[in-house]
Amino acid sequence: MSNSTITIPAADMLQLFNAILLKHGFTADRAQACAQIFTNNSIDGVYTHGVNRFPRFIEYIQKGYINIQATPTLKHQWGGVQQWDGNLGPGPLNAIHATNSVMQLAQQHGIGCVALANTNHWMRGGTYGWQAAKAGFVFIGWTNTTGLMPTWGAIDNKLGNNPLVIALPYEKEAVVLDMAMSQYSFGALELAAMKQEQLPVFGGFDTNGQLTTDPAAIRTSRRPLPIGYWKGAGLSLLLDILAAVLSGGLSVHEITQQQSEMSVSQVFIAIDISKLGNHSSITQVVQHIIADYHRSIPENNKLITFPGERVLQTRSRNLANGIPVLKQVWDEIYRLNS
Amino acid sequence: MSNSTITIPAADMLQLFNAILLKHGFTADRAQACAQIFTNNSIDGVYTHGVNRFPRFIEYIQKGYINIQATPTLKHQWGGVQQWDGNLGPGPLNAIHATNSVMQLAQQHGIGCVALANTNHWMRGGTYGWQAAKAGFVFIGWTNTTGLMPTWGAIDNKLGNNPLVIALPYEKEAVVLDMAMSQYSFGALELAAMKQEQLPVFGGFDTNGQLTTDPAAIRTSRRPLPIGYWKGAGLSLLLDILAAVLSGGLSVHEITQQQSEMSVSQVFIAIDISKLGNHSSITQVVQHIIADYHRSIPENNKLITFPGERVLQTRSRNLANGIPVLKQVWDEIYRLNS
Repeated sequence: MSNSTITIPAADMLQLFNAILLKHGFTADRAQACAQIFTNNSIDGVYTHGVNRFPRFIEYIQKGYINIQATPTLKHQWGGVQQWDGNLGPGPLNAIHATNSVMQLAQQHGIGCVALANTNHWMRGGTYGWQAAKAGFVFIGWTNTTGLMPTWGAIDNKLGNNPLVIALPYEKEAVVLDMAMSQYSFGALELAAMKQEQLPVFGGFDTNGQLTTDPAAIRTSRRPLPIGYWKGAGLSLLLDILAAVLSGGLSVHEITQQQSEMSVSQVFIAIDISKLGNHSSITQVVQHIIADYHRSIPENNKLITFPGERVLQTRSRNLANGIPVLKQVWDEIYRLNS
Repeated sequence: MSNSTITIPAADMLQLFNAILLKHGFTADRAQACAQIFTNNSIDGVYTHGVNRFPRFIEYIQKGYINIQATPTLKHQWGGVQQWDGNLGPGPLNAIHATNSVMQLAQQHGIGCVALANTNHWMRGGTYGWQAAKAGFVFIGWTNTTGLMPTWGAIDNKLGNNPLVIALPYEKEAVVLDMAMSQYSFGALELAAMKQEQLPVFGGFDTNGQLTTDPAAIRTSRRPLPIGYWKGAGLSLLLDILAAVLSGGLSVHEITQQQSEMSVSQVFIAIDISKLGNHSSITQVVQHIIADYHRSIPENNKLITFPGERVLQTRSRNLANGIPVLKQVWDEIYRLNS
């Protein structure tokens, strides 16, 4: 069965990713950091931007889209704002760098903004939300992408799904919202189509221009739906404009003109919670809000969770039992090391 | 006909608002500023937070929810972050003050953040986006509200609609996104119900828990829909947490416990575009993005507009022809001056 699922201990996954990255020329520390991000995303259940994406990451290195040696260079600074060139380095390493930089700025100025041009796919945006929140910062960040979604009233894909991340510390963990501007990711549409399942809510239009819950019809029409229809379309456009303006990098329409999704633009904003006048009471404030939220009256015993809450459950399950991976994916990764 | 519409010249509206505010004890400059905001919102077509809302604004003053003399006081500053107490002053005046303060911070630090606790309804969030964008700043701001929307999977209203504003300069005007986290405002549901029209897309649940386009059914169930279902619910929650944490003010669940919506929390973030290394090319960058966006292939000749674009058309039409107002609303306002 090519679609059978096996479970891989996190340590084994980390080791294999690390070995493959070393084989492809990464230095030891950068191989380790990059392998850790792909492994952590898989531990947290974000397989589409973890283990399932790893082969394409290697493919993009081989095609020269990603420059494994490159590190970001500072183009311009004014106060708490820095503009960096990512020099087409590995997206996750560039984004970790940007998050570290923006936290330093926030320590110095209360709030900081790092805008990063000419970088590559950061994989899971939540990675940087968790990173900053666990270090004690409010985090707001987003990336632009290639065009893959029509605006409201249009049929061609002028908009990116431009994931937005908002995070802050919560008890010993974090609240982390990580949401793309499309109602469903292409990965989710692909999975539902493969399982021949209907989507729970409208995910796009069919080729007749009718809203549909049929994932295969949306894949055919290439018309996924922005969240909130015209609202998510507007938010996607603004996130793209700000990413391009603040970083001096490419916008969605320029990224789309390339042979592949590369040289994207990203924004990282951090606020240092320890510098706020009310910092000593903040833990309690967040606890009260979450407690009230959890007291929501559920419909049909549905589970009410806050953004990031289910990640913790997946994380502990995958650490205990190993990470579920499609055997064909793992076989493909294994071959990258041979 | 009580529902007939009359047109009022903007200057007449401004004059009447001003007179009523003076009668209620506003100082001359604050009456003028406040009257201008309500008039401008009406000129721009946002009647729900302009002329139609003015009587309730006066009612809240009479009930003592709004302290017309109060101005914001600075509670705490660290670098580019300021925390203010709005002292229950008039929401629009407090928000103008906060926008002025955050632009000053952005001039000094590149980026600034003003968090405002204990303030009142800012009316139309776009007001402050236009203000900052026309002055040359990127603006990101939001407010929390009383609970009026259930989270995903729940039936009771734990979430605010927490409008989010993102704006930046564009040619001589601005791109301004001003969106609540509910798919439709209560004003829009009320209007559609009155006209016995169906909504273009699902706006909430009926009392049987089915998604519906019937505005009356949603008003009965009190279950409006967050944009993007679980996604808009998550974004609403995060905006509320950040508003309460950054300002030290009330969160949605605390606001909801009051007799009316008052003492809300707001966040204003500004970035000074003139301090960016690429500032000389930004106008052109935004033009290129908007031009590409306008080249979208429309479905059925639909008009493709960017956030804020239609406002300009409404503005020039209402300035030329007068502002359309329901006669019964204008009569009610007229009586406030007698």
